[in-house]
Amino acid sequence: MARGVFITLEGADGCGKSTQASLLEAAISAKGREVVRLREPGGTAISEKIRGLLLDPANAEMVPECELLLYEASRAQLTRQVIEPALARGAAVLCDRYYDSTYAYQAGGRGLDETLVRQFNVLGSCGRVPDRTIVLDLDPALGYARATAGGADRMEAEGLAFQERVRNAYLRLAAEEPARVRVVDASGEKNEVTARIMAALEDLWVS
Amino acid sequence: MARGVFITLEGADGCGKSTQASLLEAAISAKGREVVRLREPGGTAISEKIRGLLLDPANAEMVPECELLLYEASRAQLTRQVIEPALARGAAVLCDRYYDSTYAYQAGGRGLDETLVRQFNVLGSCGRVPDRTIVLDLDPALGYARATAGGADRMEAEGLAFQERVRNAYLRLAAEEPARVRVVDASGEKNEVTARIMAALEDLWVS
Repeated sequence: MARGVFITLEGADGCGKSTQASLLEAAISAKGREVVRLREPGGTAISEKIRGLLLDPANAEMVPECELLLYEASRAQLTRQVIEPALARGAAVLCDRYYDSTYAYQAGGRGLDETLVRQFNVLGSCGRVPDRTIVLDLDPALGYARATAGGADRMEAEGLAFQERVRNAYLRLAAEEPARVRVVDASGEKNEVTARIMAALEDLWVS
Repeated sequence: MARGVFITLEGADGCGKSTQASLLEAAISAKGREVVRLREPGGTAISEKIRGLLLDPANAEMVPECELLLYEASRAQLTRQVIEPALARGAAVLCDRYYDSTYAYQAGGRGLDETLVRQFNVLGSCGRVPDRTIVLDLDPALGYARATAGGADRMEAEGLAFQERVRNAYLRLAAEEPARVRVVDASGEKNEVTARIMAALEDLWVS
């Protein structure tokens, strides 16, 4: 049986992450691997209920610590209930955002205490570390224009300077953990981007 | 203006904590202090929604890490939204269970990793430490008989050995932090117990 492989997709808003997740799912499936594609927050009945709390505009008074802990609670449930069993049976787990998003957006974008956010992340991921994390990298001005073309959501409404801080946080992670975190140029034609990502995953298929 | 005072009430099931919370609220009010009486998990609109997730039997597949993080998320919201403002205006905050319950039940009772539970607790309480914590102490066999007299809930159904581990965890905390955590004999007539608790709080009223 093939070894399970845990891949996470990261990037600032408008980097083309959702499109690439679909293309990657097809490309990995074509290798004969079971692909479990997930999206955070969510992916289990309990995690979806937590997602509901996070996104409900009625909960506008939510404090940052509560918000962070809810993201981590959703992540813990997803990790234990779905990711770990999928990896144990040899699947390729492809997760659209995981704990590096919490780091990039909360510590990088919003400026929350970096050590604290890292602690939250270890707890929420139950100590699980992705085998490979792809950061889709794009000029923030270009990504921001794409992301806000149809109107800005709460996160996108933070503005371009915020997106630049998010990008810089991702680049710091890649510098800190070069074996795990790979920066992939997200500009150009979408199938070319997929080919770049697949090249950055190539060593994972040898089991 | 009086200095805000943060008091938490702890103890194993059946120790008479709820009864004492009511009697204490009256006794502290009689001193002319505003009393804000709270119960965990809950106490804010968001915390009550989280409480709903925690208590819903439909969520039986919830993993221990998710459960812990939800308790801490509820606590963070309560701390920032209610406890801190109440203390800032000089109130006496009386909270029926706080982070020592998480320690006593999860680390003590269930045997989860002690260091991990303590980290969760620091994050969920946003670093806030009670001025005084009263542990109502009773022979576990007597408390357990009381708590299960009307039928056992999920926690109480863990059995007498579990309640003994919870009690021992509380006694360890009292030994570690004698200035904050005071063990009060919960046996005997309820007004006598209240008097013992008020004696253990006496120094807090000098501001």
